[in-house]
Amino acid sequence: MLLYDNRHAPSPRRVRIFLKEKGIDVPTVPVDILAGGNLTPDFMQVSPRGLLPVLCLDNGMIIDETVAICRYFEEIKPEPSLFGLTPLDKALVESWSRRAEFDGMGGVADVFRNSVPLMANRGVPGRTGDPQIPQLVDRGRITVARFYQMLDDRLAHSRYLAGDQFSVADITALCTIDFSAFAGMPIPDEDTNVRRWHKDVSQRPGAYA
Amino acid sequence: MLLYDNRHAPSPRRVRIFLKEKGIDVPTVPVDILAGGNLTPDFMQVSPRGLLPVLCLDNGMIIDETVAICRYFEEIKPEPSLFGLTPLDKALVESWSRRAEFDGMGGVADVFRNSVPLMANRGVPGRTGDPQIPQLVDRGRITVARFYQMLDDRLAHSRYLAGDQFSVADITALCTIDFSAFAGMPIPDEDTNVRRWHKDVSQRPGAYA
Repeated sequence: MLLYDNRHAPSPRRVRIFLKEKGIDVPTVPVDILAGGNLTPDFMQVSPRGLLPVLCLDNGMIIDETVAICRYFEEIKPEPSLFGLTPLDKALVESWSRRAEFDGMGGVADVFRNSVPLMANRGVPGRTGDPQIPQLVDRGRITVARFYQMLDDRLAHSRYLAGDQFSVADITALCTIDFSAFAGMPIPDEDTNVRRWHKDVSQRPGAYA
Repeated sequence: MLLYDNRHAPSPRRVRIFLKEKGIDVPTVPVDILAGGNLTPDFMQVSPRGLLPVLCLDNGMIIDETVAICRYFEEIKPEPSLFGLTPLDKALVESWSRRAEFDGMGGVADVFRNSVPLMANRGVPGRTGDPQIPQLVDRGRITVARFYQMLDDRLAHSRYLAGDQFSVADITALCTIDFSAFAGMPIPDEDTNVRRWHKDVSQRPGAYA
Protein backbone atom coordinates (compact mmCIF):
# COMPACT_ATOMS: atom_id res chain seq x y z
CA MET A 1 0.00 0.00 0.00
CA LEU A 2 1.28 3.45 -0.92
CA LEU A 3 -0.13 6.94 -0.39
CA TYR A 4 0.71 9.75 -2.83
CA ASP A 5 0.87 12.79 -0.60
CA ASN A 6 1.57 16.50 -0.43
CA ARG A 7 2.53 18.42 2.72
CA HIS A 8 0.80 21.71 1.85
CA ALA A 9 -2.54 20.87 0.25
CA PRO A 10 -5.58 20.37 2.51
CA SER A 11 -6.95 17.10 1.09
CA PRO A 12 -3.85 14.95 1.61
CA ARG A 13 -3.67 16.39 5.13
CA ARG A 14 -7.19 15.10 5.81
CA VAL A 15 -5.99 11.56 5.11
CA ARG A 16 -2.81 11.96 7.19
CA ILE A 17 -4.82 13.13 10.22
CA PHE A 18 -7.32 10.33 9.71
CA LEU A 19 -4.56 7.72 9.64
CA LYS A 20 -2.94 9.16 12.75
CA GLU A 21 -6.27 9.05 14.64
CA LYS A 22 -6.63 5.41 13.54
CA GLY A 23 -3.05 4.52 14.39
CA ILE A 24 -2.34 3.30 10.86
CA ASP A 25 1.00 3.76 9.11
CA VAL A 26 1.14 3.91 5.32
CA PRO A 27 4.30 4.66 3.33
CA THR A 28 3.98 7.92 1.42
CA VAL A 29 5.36 9.34 -1.82
CA PRO A 30 5.54 13.15 -1.91
CA VAL A 31 4.20 14.93 -5.00
CA ASP A 32 4.93 18.65 -5.51
CA ILE A 33 1.62 20.16 -6.62
CA LEU A 34 2.92 23.73 -6.94
CA ALA A 35 5.63 22.54 -9.32
CA GLY A 36 2.99 20.61 -11.28
CA GLY A 37 4.14 17.18 -10.12
CA ASN A 38 0.53 15.99 -10.17
CA LEU A 39 0.20 16.90 -13.85
CA THR A 40 3.20 15.01 -15.21
CA PRO A 41 2.66 12.03 -17.54
CA ASP A 42 4.25 9.77 -14.91
CA PHE A 43 1.79 10.75 -12.22
CA MET A 44 -1.17 10.77 -14.61
CA GLN A 45 -0.32 7.16 -15.40
CA VAL A 46 -0.78 6.34 -11.72
CA SER A 47 -3.87 8.53 -11.35
CA PRO A 48 -5.46 9.95 -14.52
CA ARG A 49 -7.46 12.64 -12.70
CA GLY A 50 -4.25 14.30 -11.52
CA LEU A 51 -5.54 14.78 -7.97
CA LEU A 52 -4.07 14.13 -4.54
CA PRO A 53 -4.21 12.17 -2.31
CA VAL A 54 -4.14 8.81 -4.09
CA LEU A 55 -4.00 5.46 -2.33
CA CYS A 56 -2.50 2.57 -4.29
CA LEU A 57 -3.57 -0.82 -3.00
CA ASP A 58 -1.42 -3.93 -3.14
CA ASN A 59 -3.65 -5.39 -5.86
CA GLY A 60 -2.83 -2.42 -8.10
CA MET A 61 -6.14 -0.61 -7.72
CA ILE A 62 -6.16 3.07 -6.85
CA ILE A 63 -8.55 5.15 -4.74
CA ASP A 64 -8.25 8.82 -5.62
CA GLU A 65 -10.95 10.47 -3.50
CA THR A 66 -10.12 11.66 0.03
CA VAL A 67 -13.31 10.47 1.71
CA ALA A 68 -13.25 7.14 -0.14
CA ILE A 69 -9.70 6.56 1.13
CA CYS A 70 -10.75 7.41 4.69
CA ARG A 71 -13.79 5.15 4.46
CA TYR A 72 -11.63 2.28 3.24
CA PHE A 73 -9.51 2.57 6.38
CA GLU A 74 -12.61 2.94 8.58
CA GLU A 75 -13.81 -0.38 7.19
CA ILE A 76 -10.58 -2.28 7.61
CA LYS A 77 -9.93 -0.80 11.07
CA PRO A 78 -13.25 0.28 12.62
CA GLU A 79 -11.83 1.50 15.96
CA PRO A 80 -11.84 4.32 16.89
CA SER A 81 -14.86 5.10 14.72
CA LEU A 82 -14.54 8.36 12.81
CA PHE A 83 -17.66 8.01 10.64
CA GLY A 84 -20.17 7.39 13.48
CA LEU A 85 -21.78 4.20 14.73
CA THR A 86 -25.59 4.58 14.65
CA PRO A 87 -27.57 5.40 11.48
CA LEU A 88 -28.27 8.91 12.74
CA ASP A 89 -24.66 9.52 13.80
CA LYS A 90 -23.43 8.31 10.41
CA ALA A 91 -25.83 10.67 8.65
CA LEU A 92 -24.76 13.60 10.84
CA VAL A 93 -21.07 12.93 10.31
CA GLU A 94 -21.54 12.67 6.56
CA SER A 95 -23.74 15.75 6.50
CA TRP A 96 -21.27 17.92 8.42
CA SER A 97 -18.28 16.64 6.51
CA ARG A 98 -20.03 17.50 3.24
CA ARG A 99 -21.04 20.92 4.53
CA ALA A 100 -17.39 21.56 5.34
CA GLU A 101 -16.45 20.44 1.82
CA PHE A 102 -19.11 22.19 -0.23
CA ASP A 103 -19.81 25.26 1.88
CA GLY A 104 -16.30 25.65 3.25
CA MET A 105 -13.56 24.12 1.14
CA GLY A 106 -15.37 24.97 -2.09
CA GLY A 107 -15.30 28.65 -1.21
CA VAL A 108 -11.70 28.64 -0.02
CA ALA A 109 -10.60 26.86 -3.20
CA ASP A 110 -12.44 29.42 -5.34
CA VAL A 111 -10.54 32.23 -3.62
CA PHE A 112 -7.16 30.48 -3.63
CA ARG A 113 -7.12 29.04 -7.14
CA ASN A 114 -8.41 32.21 -8.75
CA SER A 115 -6.16 34.73 -7.01
CA VAL A 116 -2.75 33.20 -6.31
CA PRO A 117 -0.24 33.85 -9.13
CA LEU A 118 1.22 30.34 -8.74
CA MET A 119 -2.18 28.93 -9.71
CA ALA A 120 -2.41 30.97 -12.93
CA ASN A 121 -3.92 28.80 -15.65
CA ARG A 122 -4.76 26.16 -13.03
CA GLY A 123 -8.26 27.25 -12.10
CA VAL A 124 -9.44 23.64 -11.83
CA PRO A 125 -7.64 20.91 -9.84
CA GLY A 126 -5.96 18.19 -11.88
CA ARG A 127 -5.65 20.06 -15.16
CA THR A 128 -4.07 23.10 -16.83
CA GLY A 129 -5.37 25.66 -19.30
CA ASP A 130 -8.19 27.06 -17.16
CA PRO A 131 -7.63 30.80 -16.71
CA GLN A 132 -8.32 32.28 -13.29
CA ILE A 133 -11.77 33.90 -12.91
CA PRO A 134 -11.47 36.93 -10.61
CA GLN A 135 -15.23 37.06 -9.89
CA LEU A 136 -14.91 33.68 -8.18
CA VAL A 137 -12.73 35.33 -5.54
CA ASP A 138 -15.62 37.55 -4.43
CA ARG A 139 -18.07 34.67 -4.62
CA GLY A 140 -15.74 32.47 -2.58
CA ARG A 141 -15.28 35.11 0.14
CA ILE A 142 -19.04 35.28 0.67
CA THR A 143 -19.19 31.48 0.81
CA VAL A 144 -16.44 31.31 3.43
CA ALA A 145 -18.04 34.04 5.59
CA ARG A 146 -21.32 32.11 5.61
CA PHE A 147 -19.48 28.90 6.42
CA TYR A 148 -17.85 30.42 9.50
CA GLN A 149 -21.24 31.68 10.65
CA MET A 150 -22.82 28.24 10.21
CA LEU A 151 -19.98 26.57 12.13
CA ASP A 152 -20.17 29.08 14.95
CA ASP A 153 -23.92 28.54 15.32
CA ARG A 154 -23.43 24.80 15.41
CA LEU A 155 -20.49 24.81 17.81
CA ALA A 156 -22.39 27.00 20.25
CA HIS A 157 -24.42 23.87 21.04
CA SER A 158 -22.11 20.98 20.24
CA ARG A 159 -18.58 20.04 21.28
CA TYR A 160 -17.73 18.64 17.86
CA LEU A 161 -19.39 19.16 14.52
CA ALA A 162 -21.43 15.96 14.45
CA GLY A 163 -22.06 15.79 18.21
CA ASP A 164 -20.11 14.65 21.28
CA GLN A 165 -17.61 12.55 19.35
CA PHE A 166 -14.69 13.73 17.25
CA SER A 167 -15.23 12.57 13.66
CA VAL A 168 -14.02 12.88 10.10
CA ALA A 169 -16.26 15.96 9.83
CA ASP A 170 -13.97 17.74 12.30
CA ILE A 171 -10.95 16.72 10.24
CA THR A 172 -12.55 18.13 7.09
CA ALA A 173 -13.43 21.38 8.85
CA LEU A 174 -10.01 21.74 10.50
CA CYS A 175 -8.20 21.35 7.19
CA THR A 176 -10.66 23.74 5.54
CA ILE A 177 -10.17 26.42 8.19
CA ASP A 178 -6.38 26.20 8.30
CA PHE A 179 -6.32 26.42 4.51
CA SER A 180 -8.73 29.35 4.70
CA ALA A 181 -6.37 31.14 7.10
CA PHE A 182 -3.48 30.45 4.73
CA ALA A 183 -5.58 32.02 1.94
CA GLY A 184 -6.11 35.14 4.05
CA MET A 185 -9.48 34.29 5.62
CA PRO A 186 -8.80 33.29 9.24
CA ILE A 187 -11.54 32.59 11.82
CA PRO A 188 -13.35 35.89 12.47
CA ASP A 189 -12.64 37.30 15.96
CA GLU A 190 -16.29 37.16 16.96
CA ASP A 191 -16.65 33.43 16.20
CA THR A 192 -15.68 32.38 19.71
CA ASN A 193 -17.24 28.92 19.37
CA VAL A 194 -15.20 28.14 16.29
CA ARG A 195 -12.09 29.39 18.11
CA ARG A 196 -12.75 27.14 21.11
CA TRP A 197 -13.31 24.13 18.85
CA HIS A 198 -10.28 24.96 16.69
CA LYS A 199 -8.01 25.13 19.73
CA ASP A 200 -9.39 21.81 20.96
CA VAL A 201 -9.03 19.83 17.73
CA SER A 202 -5.66 21.42 16.90
CA GLN A 203 -4.25 19.89 20.07
CA ARG A 204 -5.03 16.34 19.08
CA PRO A 205 -1.88 14.26 18.46
CA GLY A 206 -2.60 13.82 14.76
CA ALA A 207 -3.63 17.39 13.96
CA TYR A 208 -0.32 18.30 12.41
CA ALA A 209 0.48 14.88 11.03
CA MET B 1 -40.54 11.52 8.47
CA LEU B 2 -40.89 14.03 5.65
CA LEU B 3 -38.85 14.69 2.51
CA TYR B 4 -38.73 18.16 0.98
CA ASP B 5 -38.54 17.47 -2.72
CA ASN B 6 -38.46 19.00 -6.19
CA ARG B 7 -39.39 17.20 -9.40
CA HIS B 8 -36.90 18.95 -11.70
CA ALA B 9 -33.63 19.29 -9.80
CA PRO B 10 -31.11 16.44 -9.94
CA SER B 11 -30.28 16.07 -6.23
CA PRO B 12 -33.83 15.38 -4.98
CA ARG B 13 -34.17 12.89 -7.82
CA ARG B 14 -31.14 11.02 -6.52
CA VAL B 15 -32.95 10.44 -3.23
CA ARG B 16 -36.22 9.43 -4.92
CA ILE B 17 -34.43 6.81 -7.04
CA PHE B 18 -32.54 5.57 -4.00
CA LEU B 19 -35.76 5.15 -2.02
CA LYS B 20 -37.45 3.32 -4.89
CA GLU B 21 -34.50 0.91 -5.16
CA LYS B 22 -34.79 0.30 -1.42
CA GLY B 23 -38.56 -0.05 -1.49
CA ILE B 24 -39.03 2.73 1.06
CA ASP B 25 -41.93 5.18 0.99
CA VAL B 26 -41.50 8.64 2.51
CA PRO B 27 -44.12 11.40 2.29
CA THR B 28 -42.86 14.37 0.30
CA VAL B 29 -43.46 18.10 0.28
CA PRO B 30 -42.81 19.78 -3.09
CA VAL B 31 -40.70 22.96 -3.13
CA ASP B 32 -40.55 25.09 -6.29
CA ILE B 33 -36.87 25.99 -6.70
CA LEU B 34 -37.31 28.02 -9.90
CA ALA B 35 -39.88 30.22 -8.14
CA GLY B 36 -37.47 30.61 -5.21
CA GLY B 37 -39.49 28.42 -2.84
CA ASN B 38 -36.24 27.20 -1.28
CA LEU B 39 -35.22 30.75 -0.40
CA THR B 40 -38.35 31.84 1.49
CA PRO B 41 -38.14 32.55 5.25
CA ASP B 42 -40.52 29.64 5.86
CA PHE B 43 -38.29 27.14 4.12
CA MET B 44 -35.12 28.62 5.57
CA GLN B 45 -36.58 28.02 9.00
CA VAL B 46 -36.82 24.33 8.15
CA SER B 47 -33.43 24.25 6.46
CA PRO B 48 -31.15 27.29 6.83
CA ARG B 49 -28.90 26.34 3.91
CA GLY B 50 -31.81 26.66 1.48
CA LEU B 51 -30.91 23.44 -0.34
CA LEU B 52 -32.93 20.45 -1.50
CA PRO B 53 -33.53 17.65 -0.73
CA VAL B 54 -34.06 17.85 3.03
CA LEU B 55 -35.16 14.96 5.21
CA CYS B 56 -36.98 15.83 8.45
CA LEU B 57 -36.82 13.07 11.01
CA ASP B 58 -39.56 12.37 13.55
CA ASN B 59 -37.34 13.70 16.35
CA GLY B 60 -37.21 17.10 14.61
CA MET B 61 -33.66 16.77 13.26
CA ILE B 62 -32.98 17.51 9.62
CA ILE B 63 -30.52 15.99 7.17
CA ASP B 64 -29.89 18.34 4.26
CA GLU B 65 -27.23 16.56 2.23
CA THR B 66 -28.24 14.10 -0.50
CA VAL B 67 -25.65 11.43 0.25
CA ALA B 68 -26.17 11.72 4.00
CA ILE B 69 -29.90 11.12 3.46
CA CYS B 70 -29.17 8.09 1.30
CA ARG B 71 -26.70 6.71 3.80
CA TYR B 72 -29.23 7.07 6.61
CA PHE B 73 -31.64 4.86 4.66
CA GLU B 74 -28.86 2.41 3.79
CA GLU B 75 -28.21 2.02 7.51
CA ILE B 76 -31.82 1.54 8.57
CA LYS B 77 -32.58 -0.78 5.63
CA PRO B 78 -29.35 -2.40 4.45
CA GLU B 79 -30.90 -4.57 1.69
CA PRO B 80 -30.43 -4.22 -1.22
CA SER B 81 -27.05 -2.64 -0.55
CA LEU B 82 -26.40 0.47 -2.65
CA PHE B 83 -23.16 1.56 -0.96
CA GLY B 84 -21.26 -1.74 -1.32
CA LEU B 85 -20.54 -4.51 1.16
CA THR B 86 -16.78 -5.10 1.38
CA PRO B 87 -14.26 -2.38 2.34
CA LEU B 88 -12.99 -2.20 -1.25
CA ASP B 89 -16.49 -2.11 -2.75
CA LYS B 90 -17.50 0.65 -0.35
CA ALA B 91 -14.43 2.66 -1.33
CA LEU B 92 -15.12 2.16 -5.03
CA VAL B 93 -18.78 3.14 -4.72
CA GLU B 94 -17.86 6.26 -2.76
CA SER B 95 -15.07 7.10 -5.15
CA TRP B 96 -17.25 6.82 -8.26
CA SER B 97 -20.15 8.65 -6.69
CA ARG B 98 -17.84 11.51 -5.77
CA ARG B 99 -16.29 11.54 -9.24
CA ALA B 100 -19.80 11.89 -10.65
CA GLU B 101 -20.48 14.74 -8.23
CA PHE B 102 -17.26 16.69 -8.53
CA ASP B 103 -16.20 15.94 -12.09
CA GLY B 104 -19.71 15.65 -13.52
CA MET B 105 -22.41 17.47 -11.59
CA GLY B 106 -20.04 20.29 -10.66
CA GLY B 107 -19.42 21.03 -14.32
CA VAL B 108 -23.07 20.75 -15.33
CA ALA B 109 -24.09 23.08 -12.50
CA ASP B 110 -21.46 25.62 -13.58
CA VAL B 111 -22.94 25.66 -17.08
CA PHE B 112 -26.58 25.69 -16.00
CA ARG B 113 -26.46 28.21 -13.17
CA ASN B 114 -24.32 30.66 -15.07
CA SER B 115 -26.17 30.64 -18.38
CA VAL B 116 -29.91 30.14 -17.80
CA PRO B 117 -31.82 33.44 -17.46
CA LEU B 118 -34.03 31.97 -14.71
CA MET B 119 -30.91 31.51 -12.59
CA ALA B 120 -29.81 35.15 -12.92
CA ASN B 121 -28.43 36.35 -9.61
CA ARG B 122 -28.55 32.76 -8.31
CA GLY B 123 -25.07 31.63 -9.22
CA VAL B 124 -24.73 29.65 -5.97
CA PRO B 125 -27.32 27.15 -4.68
CA GLY B 126 -29.25 28.21 -1.59
CA ARG B 127 -28.72 31.97 -1.82
CA THR B 128 -29.36 35.01 -4.01
CA GLY B 129 -27.23 37.97 -5.01
CA ASP B 130 -24.49 36.05 -6.81
CA PRO B 131 -24.28 37.29 -10.40
CA GLN B 132 -23.76 34.73 -13.13
CA ILE B 133 -20.14 34.31 -14.27
CA PRO B 134 -20.08 33.60 -18.02
CA GLN B 135 -16.52 32.21 -17.93
CA LEU B 136 -17.77 29.36 -15.76
CA VAL B 137 -19.88 28.16 -18.68
CA ASP B 138 -16.76 27.48 -20.75
CA ARG B 139 -14.99 25.95 -17.78
CA GLY B 140 -18.00 23.74 -17.06
CA ARG B 141 -18.23 22.51 -20.64
CA ILE B 142 -14.63 21.30 -20.52
CA THR B 143 -15.33 19.57 -17.20
CA VAL B 144 -18.37 17.78 -18.59
CA ALA B 145 -16.54 16.64 -21.74
CA ARG B 146 -13.80 15.14 -19.59
CA PHE B 147 -16.37 13.49 -17.36
CA TYR B 148 -18.03 11.73 -20.30
CA GLN B 149 -14.63 10.50 -21.44
CA MET B 150 -13.79 9.14 -18.00
CA LEU B 151 -17.14 7.36 -17.76
CA ASP B 152 -16.79 5.85 -21.20
CA ASP B 153 -13.33 4.51 -20.38
CA ARG B 154 -14.63 2.98 -17.17
CA LEU B 155 -17.79 1.50 -18.63
CA ALA B 156 -15.81 -0.17 -21.41
CA HIS B 157 -14.63 -2.60 -18.71
CA SER B 158 -17.37 -2.57 -16.11
CA ARG B 159 -21.13 -3.13 -16.22
CA TYR B 160 -21.80 -0.49 -13.58
CA LEU B 161 -19.63 2.34 -12.31
CA ALA B 162 -18.33 0.64 -9.19
CA GLY B 163 -18.24 -2.91 -10.62
CA ASP B 164 -20.79 -5.67 -11.23
CA GLN B 165 -23.41 -4.29 -8.85
CA PHE B 166 -25.71 -1.31 -9.35
CA SER B 167 -24.94 1.28 -6.66
CA VAL B 168 -25.57 4.82 -5.52
CA ALA B 169 -22.70 5.85 -7.83
CA ASP B 170 -24.87 4.88 -10.82
CA ILE B 171 -27.73 6.92 -9.40
CA THR B 172 -25.47 9.96 -9.05
CA ALA B 173 -24.15 9.55 -12.58
CA LEU B 174 -27.60 8.96 -14.10
CA CYS B 175 -28.99 12.13 -12.54
CA THR B 176 -25.88 14.04 -13.59
CA ILE B 177 -26.14 12.90 -17.20
CA ASP B 178 -29.86 13.53 -17.57
CA PHE B 179 -29.36 16.99 -16.10
CA SER B 180 -26.44 17.50 -18.46
CA ALA B 181 -28.65 16.61 -21.44
CA PHE B 182 -31.27 19.06 -20.16
CA ALA B 183 -28.53 21.72 -20.02
CA GLY B 184 -27.63 21.01 -23.67
CA MET B 185 -24.77 18.55 -23.14
CA PRO B 186 -26.12 15.07 -23.95
CA ILE B 187 -23.97 11.93 -24.09
CA PRO B 188 -21.60 12.30 -27.07
CA ASP B 189 -22.45 9.94 -29.95
CA GLU B 190 -19.08 8.22 -29.78
CA ASP B 191 -19.44 7.27 -26.09
CA THR B 192 -21.07 3.95 -26.83
CA ASN B 193 -20.27 2.50 -23.42
CA VAL B 194 -21.99 5.35 -21.63
CA ARG B 195 -24.98 4.91 -23.97
CA ARG B 196 -25.22 1.19 -23.22
CA TRP B 197 -25.03 1.83 -19.48
CA HIS B 198 -27.49 4.74 -19.66
CA LYS B 199 -30.05 2.59 -21.46
CA ASP B 200 -29.59 -0.15 -18.89
CA VAL B 201 -29.94 1.98 -15.74
CA SER B 202 -32.75 4.09 -17.24
CA GLN B 203 -34.87 0.96 -17.49
CA ARG B 204 -34.76 0.22 -13.78
CA PRO B 205 -38.15 0.58 -12.10
CA GLY B 206 -37.06 3.53 -9.96
CA ALA B 207 -35.18 5.47 -12.64
CA TYR B 208 -37.97 7.95 -13.23
CA ALA B 209 -39.30 7.93 -9.68
